[in-house]
Amino acid sequence: MRVAVVGCGAVGSLFAAALAQLDDVEVWAYDLDEAHVRAINEHGLRITGAGELVGRVRATTDAAELPPCDFGIVAVKSMYTDRAMAETAHAFADGGAACSVQNGAGNEELIAGHVAEVIRGTTFPAGHIVEPGLVGWDTKGDTHIGPFEPSPAPMDKVEALADACTRGGMPTHALADARGAQWRKLIFNSASNAIGALTGLTHGRIAESPTRDLAWAVMAEGRAVADAQGIVLDRSPEELFDFAARKEIAYDHKPSMLQDVEAGRATEIDFLNGAVVSFGERHGVDAPLNRALTALVKGLERGNE
Amino acid sequence: MRVAVVGCGAVGSLFAAALAQLDDVEVWAYDLDEAHVRAINEHGLRITGAGELVGRVRATTDAAELPPCDFGIVAVKSMYTDRAMAETAHAFADGGAACSVQNGAGNEELIAGHVAEVIRGTTFPAGHIVEPGLVGWDTKGDTHIGPFEPSPAPMDKVEALADACTRGGMPTHALADARGAQWRKLIFNSASNAIGALTGLTHGRIAESPTRDLAWAVMAEGRAVADAQGIVLDRSPEELFDFAARKEIAYDHKPSMLQDVEAGRATEIDFLNGAVVSFGERHGVDAPLNRALTALVKGLERGNE
Repeated sequence: MRVAVVGCGAVGSLFAAALAQLDDVEVWAYDLDEAHVRAINEHGLRITGAGELVGRVRATTDAAELPPCDFGIVAVKSMYTDRAMAETAHAFADGGAACSVQNGAGNEELIAGHVAEVIRGTTFPAGHIVEPGLVGWDTKGDTHIGPFEPSPAPMDKVEALADACTRGGMPTHALADARGAQWRKLIFNSASNAIGALTGLTHGRIAESPTRDLAWAVMAEGRAVADAQGIVLDRSPEELFDFAARKEIAYDHKPSMLQDVEAGRATEIDFLNGAVVSFGERHGVDAPLNRALTALVKGLERGNE
Repeated sequence: MRVAVVGCGAVGSLFAAALAQLDDVEVWAYDLDEAHVRAINEHGLRITGAGELVGRVRATTDAAELPPCDFGIVAVKSMYTDRAMAETAHAFADGGAACSVQNGAGNEELIAGHVAEVIRGTTFPAGHIVEPGLVGWDTKGDTHIGPFEPSPAPMDKVEALADACTRGGMPTHALADARGAQWRKLIFNSASNAIGALTGLTHGRIAESPTRDLAWAVMAEGRAVADAQGIVLDRSPEELFDFAARKEIAYDHKPSMLQDVEAGRATEIDFLNGAVVSFGERHGVDAPLNRALTALVKGLERGNE
């Protein structure tokens, strides 16, 4: 099996290094960070923290170098999905399937514009780039994948990819319907990321007064949009929010969108709260608080320009 | 006529210096800033910018020194209203009337807890402290005052105060019902201040995409709360917003709440968006966007602690 990881940042690197542990998988990585690519090719892709791994990965900044692949794992930031898939689609043109492990909703729709067989996915593990070629693994957790309904990969391919990821050390569940897992995480993130970005509060503090009621109201809108699509959440986003807010779990964690804002980077707001709004509009459900948060975070990006 | 200005910051100083131009008015000022008080007593209260004034004002940091006064002009930040009136109420105990020239709504209710005759007010002029004893006058404009309905000062007193302010150089209109002017400014501020504080955008940029629709939706909620109280706005907050957004007017102006946030000061959010929410609740009108902005600004204050 040959796999190309599209976007070898923190999350992409976790998948690439895990799959590279397997004798029956050949791993390629496409990324625009030249120093990171060079370090991976010279010293292997190194993971430290929640697990210690070194993976032999063939990395490139030139999408044209990617050979035909059985699978793509798409891990670019959501706002770069369309461009990255336009560049790499040739690698999946001969029966390859591409799987999103990105944040939010709406990425699979963009991938399906370039690749025939698409896998919906959502992943919990998180990390950060320590230096070129070295990724810190901060959080372990499960990944859920399933056929993307309008443009599905066959279930046996979904199961084959899940099996490889699991054997490599990234526990992955193949589901006939992965929407419940994806929307559970989207709803959770729509509250924690936007409120965190606007206030500077950590996850645990967002779950307290004066922002707790707002976070819960934002999640209620996301639930209504999921309901309207017939999506059954696999777990309660509100319970997960309170679980993550514990002192010993992630009380002091800065939501990734807050990290983006503090670093002056663009955010994934269009694929988080913006996706709750746009999926809601398509299914007749208004989401005014998510619309307000989307406008505020976009305003904040503009104010930080 | 003897007048005590309660809170001699930028706006209080404009009123104090203007009234001190009149031979028939004796002006006192109560403020906690010792350097400012000392400078006023030694060199007079100096105003520069939109007008050049020096006013002979008796300033004190000790409320007990205030003599019995005919009028109070209350200009402390809203969150200090209750404390400041508890300290100064004795000066208005013998038939004095206290007039708010503060931001937002809800101050008169607090003043009425300490003073029998209360005047509702809203003022447009703005300034900033340059150094102790010296205030920059940034913006000229009108002031509107009227009896506070549940605990009113008689109309002849309202007219006498308006006449004195106008003669001193602060054009002031005595109205039987000043609520329309106050809520016009409150609705305007509920959009510009909260969105500015959360995004860092100037007034003109708030009136543009991606925040314009949100600003207008926030103002629509304020209009509904005003309507439910039978308040007829004297001017359109939306038209004023677009007027102020012009390049030659206040496009680059940072809303005062943004200035407060950047300086690490507490904001007046409870008396702006928070007041829209609480007056709405009393009159059966929900204001979810104003509630969300209140929570976010309070969260931002907490995040900045």
